Amino acid sequence: VTPNEAFLGAFALHPAGVAVITGVTASGKPVGFTATSLTSFSAIPPRASFNMSQLASSYRALSVGSKVVLHFLAEDQVGVSARMSGPSNERFEGDHWVADDDGLPRLHGVRAMLTAHVVNVAEVGDNAAVIVQIDGGETNPDRRPLVYVERAFHSIGEVLES
Amino acid sequence: VTPNEAFLGAFALHPAGVAVITGVTASGKPVGFTATSLTSFSAIPPRASFNMSQLASSYRALSVGSKVVLHFLAEDQVGVSARMSGPSNERFEGDHWVADDDGLPRLHGVRAMLTAHVVNVAEVGDNAAVIVQIDGGETNPDRRPLVYVERAFHSIGEVLES
Repeated sequence: VTPNEAFLGAFALHPAGVAVITGVTASGKPVGFTATSLTSFSAIPPRASFNMSQLASSYRALSVGSKVVLHFLAEDQVGVSARMSGPSNERFEGDHWVADDDGLPRLHGVRAMLTAHVVNVAEVGDNAAVIVQIDGGETNPDRRPLVYVERAFHSIGEVLES
Repeated sequence: VTPNEAFLGAFALHPAGVAVITGVTASGKPVGFTATSLTSFSAIPPRASFNMSQLASSYRALSVGSKVVLHFLAEDQVGVSARMSGPSNERFEGDHWVADDDGLPRLHGVRAMLTAHVVNVAEVGDNAAVIVQIDGGETNPDRRPLVYVERAFHSIGEVLES
């Protein structure tokens, strides 16, 4: 297999939580996208990272200091995931969100939400690793998690003995 | 809640696949660690990223050009995950691995494996985002995935309608 085929095959088998990251442009336009690359970066200070294309519609809204909202999707939010990864001009059509005091889109019904600001953008090739620092947030642990693996959305399974 | 409490609460709820990343020091010593931060970075060229502390025992083996092996753990590898996140001087005790021609540790029984080399290290605070480019690999899709969420290992659940 080629390196690209190996990469695609292995990452298709790798489970990931599903997040939606939102922001706002300088002119006040909401932007956002579904990401399976959201992961913790450091605990002290509390920071997270996600990866994106520099060609993405949301990229111009993300520079050092930009505020963002990280949404951790619940099992019943497959539709929200699809909407926020669909055509960029349709992502905020509907009542699945509300603007907060800073104009940032907040999605309803998520399992957890963190507010954050960008502290570093590492551009490598046409993509970038964006590192954000957490400012606040809330959780709704009664909602069940959503997992993406093998090109499909899954619920979580049983706890395994460790 | 404080930003740190919000961060910990939200990421505890976020599912992640479990990977083990291995390398070798200049003197030929195997190094490696369990990571839930492994994620794809770009498809063309095929690149992945993971996060780590600059204080980690493996960090000195990871600079631009260093070869690494990315292992995607299977459902029956909770013990391997624990061993590779335990005391660093005990991680390669046992027969769960073999050295490849470059001296890199290869773990047995994984769901997928990618060979790669480091193309960028973005240091932010005491941590770093490491970006690697894939050189090859293989998959064993018959093995079942391992998911970490809510501070416990889980199997994958049912496919959800999209």
